[in-house]
Amino acid sequence: MTSSTPLPRIGFIGLGIMGSRMAANLAAGGFPLTVWNRTLATAEAFAADHDARVAGSPAELADVSDIVVTMVVDGDQVESVLLGPDGVASGARPGLLCIDCSTIGPAAAQRIAAGLDPHGIHLIDAPVTGSAPRAADGTLTIMAGGAAEDFALGRSVLDAMGRLVLHVGPLGHGQTIKIINNSVAAANALTVAQALLVGSDAGVDLDSLVAVMEAGSGSSTMLSLKAGPMRSHDFTPLFKLAHMLKDVRLCLDAAGVPFDAAQAAEDALREADELGFGEDDFAAILEAVERRSDRRL
Amino acid sequence: MTSSTPLPRIGFIGLGIMGSRMAANLAAGGFPLTVWNRTLATAEAFAADHDARVAGSPAELADVSDIVVTMVVDGDQVESVLLGPDGVASGARPGLLCIDCSTIGPAAAQRIAAGLDPHGIHLIDAPVTGSAPRAADGTLTIMAGGAAEDFALGRSVLDAMGRLVLHVGPLGHGQTIKIINNSVAAANALTVAQALLVGSDAGVDLDSLVAVMEAGSGSSTMLSLKAGPMRSHDFTPLFKLAHMLKDVRLCLDAAGVPFDAAQAAEDALREADELGFGEDDFAAILEAVERRSDRRL
Repeated sequence: MTSSTPLPRIGFIGLGIMGSRMAANLAAGGFPLTVWNRTLATAEAFAADHDARVAGSPAELADVSDIVVTMVVDGDQVESVLLGPDGVASGARPGLLCIDCSTIGPAAAQRIAAGLDPHGIHLIDAPVTGSAPRAADGTLTIMAGGAAEDFALGRSVLDAMGRLVLHVGPLGHGQTIKIINNSVAAANALTVAQALLVGSDAGVDLDSLVAVMEAGSGSSTMLSLKAGPMRSHDFTPLFKLAHMLKDVRLCLDAAGVPFDAAQAAEDALREADELGFGEDDFAAILEAVERRSDRRL
Repeated sequence: MTSSTPLPRIGFIGLGIMGSRMAANLAAGGFPLTVWNRTLATAEAFAADHDARVAGSPAELADVSDIVVTMVVDGDQVESVLLGPDGVASGARPGLLCIDCSTIGPAAAQRIAAGLDPHGIHLIDAPVTGSAPRAADGTLTIMAGGAAEDFALGRSVLDAMGRLVLHVGPLGHGQTIKIINNSVAAANALTVAQALLVGSDAGVDLDSLVAVMEAGSGSSTMLSLKAGPMRSHDFTPLFKLAHMLKDVRLCLDAAGVPFDAAQAAEDALREADELGFGEDDFAAILEAVERRSDRRL
């Protein structure tokens, strides 16, 4: 993008752990930015820190934006801020592009796109992977589904928030890939938790077990990221267990063929959630594994 | 090791896909080498290529060796060549060190060590990870269980075959760590196979799915190594499915707490084995996943 091309005006909805960091990168990238958040004080604090404006409603935000980015918790929230009373659709001009970075599953993405269509608003589903530190660094992986021309229009915005930005196919396919990825992550984390407990129960040196797995066929990103927190039972949230449980359920709902590893992860995440670990990092899936065998690492 | 220290004389038993490459690295490292193999012609061909001698039996091999390395298929074979008729124990002098690199499980390692003990022979269990290419490069991971003084005695031999060589604890703990690692690998491979089939069934671009997973939380060594062979149904063996099935079963036998992910892998590997894929690479675990859902990637 050359300096002569004016940057699109961005409206950003959802300033949580991820959204606040993503929006900060848009502000740092020079995009004119208007924000809205369900809790007004959060939006005002963000705007003061990042030279952004605060809108009084999603409709007002849409009125001053070329592209609206949403980063909220689930499909109901996306539907509410885009299509509900005082929602984006009620304030937008035709030609507005919505980029939803939330994880809501392919069915909700299709349903919301169908609701936006009569307003002349296009949707890209562009869920992200990578937790808060990568959101802060602008190094998220972003998998976008939608029409090629919409992806081209939103590309500069996505590039400001992510490092690997892929147009993966038509609308909804970003969602499908995201929830499969997260289900694999959850399954691999469950496997790590079980392996650590088996090793601990056998009395082997867990440093050696982890070192051997790291060096070869047993390695995974989940081993690298979660074995340490599991061993110290430090579940400071990078990605909340309740959110991972939601994503795995979306995947199981969408899957047309059995996904037994994801089902096993769903079972264990649900148990850990019921044990009270929903607000903790999903490394707390270990708690369900420990509970089942009545052993602790 | 300085040039004034004479290298120990090595007897190597088991010149299969892995053993032949490991023994070749010992020969290349200058260790005086005597080999024995159940099929004599294999031993003779190896000896001609690598300046080694061929022994007429494990007992004869032991008679001219300071350290005996075994790399065979299972515990029964290790027991046979070490403790059977014309076995190593019948030809060895007290003080011989045996290094078993086979994967036999901790119970068999303990049993064999107990059988060697009256002969004054010590045992290290030193299973390896990494397939044929890493055996050829001398870059295996080797996890050794046994007494510290035995590990020190065998260290130069292990270093000639592996890159990461760890003394992980007492006798048997190398085995325990190995079979946990392989079970994690099998479980992760099963998860990859299921994820690919779910994605394929949903019609998403598998290049994008794999790229997203590789970039983040869904990544694993199994994804990197096996997604390609799975997608092309190319099961040229790097590590045979029947051997992986054996290792996972050893782990389930040894585990004192539930290891559900390994059990799921055992189920799928057994099904693939029954479908005739035992001699193929364990990436053929995909065949069981496909069979269950009656879909092909």
